[in-house]
Amino acid sequence: MTPPQWFRNDVCSVARTLEVMGERWTVMVMREAFLGTRRFDAFLRNTGAARNILSDRLSKLVEHGIMERRLYNERPPRYEYRLTKKGVDLYPAIVALMRWGDTYLPTEMGPAVLLEHTPCGHMGTPVLFCEHCREPIDPRDMRAHPGPAAENVVNA
Amino acid sequence: MTPPQWFRNDVCSVARTLEVMGERWTVMVMREAFLGTRRFDAFLRNTGAARNILSDRLSKLVEHGIMERRLYNERPPRYEYRLTKKGVDLYPAIVALMRWGDTYLPTEMGPAVLLEHTPCGHMGTPVLFCEHCREPIDPRDMRAHPGPAAENVVNA
Repeated sequence: MTPPQWFRNDVCSVARTLEVMGERWTVMVMREAFLGTRRFDAFLRNTGAARNILSDRLSKLVEHGIMERRLYNERPPRYEYRLTKKGVDLYPAIVALMRWGDTYLPTEMGPAVLLEHTPCGHMGTPVLFCEHCREPIDPRDMRAHPGPAAENVVNA
Repeated sequence: MTPPQWFRNDVCSVARTLEVMGERWTVMVMREAFLGTRRFDAFLRNTGAARNILSDRLSKLVEHGIMERRLYNERPPRYEYRLTKKGVDLYPAIVALMRWGDTYLPTEMGPAVLLEHTPCGHMGTPVLFCEHCREPIDPRDMRAHPGPAAENVVNA
């Protein structure tokens, strides 16, 4: 009846991702980056984070290779923060959180952000599909199997 | 150059979702629920959470309507925790965190979990598609527009 323990948290990719992204201000910074924010003062204004917290979170995102810091003005030196490929690949996670919030925790006014898929012009939040059969995913149709890092596999 | 501030965090669906899900143990509990765990002792073993923390997180998930508590044994009374529709709809967020971790924070042994889309038998992690044109999403092709809850919209 009870499923086996497959792994400890240290090999869980969800847990590992949370080590990097599992902090509110970090996620707010990523949201802003996806909305096009690049400069420190704009992150400061738009996230509402305290200056020292924002500075710390941006530095950590740079350390992790999720953002890169680029000089955009020489005198005085001014930097902007841009998402790397590793950073852009967090888009599905941010979109998933946004879609769930839009659905289950709506404001009286409706959503703050609407998304357009520019190649087709459709407004709407992307959803999960199977890459192989290109059908939308019903979570009940997904079966988890133990991967190579799984351990203590019982009845798998 | 700098994008406008569209909204404050209190109308941001990402921020609102983090109010409910933005805590490590809560996410670990959800991961286990998606792997099929239902009973308190199995959550305890598989997440590694302390008993009081697990109890608190499960109660909050029930309060938020993400899980429901069901009696499965009368003498002695024993309960299991099952995802509601609202809970199942967090699957894309968990899968996105897992996929990113598998890609960018891999263990030496590889992934702990492999996913199968049972209707087509394909192994792989689902990805974002546009519901309209049914093409995979490139985040650079998504344009954000201010929604009804946006405010202080400049140059929108």
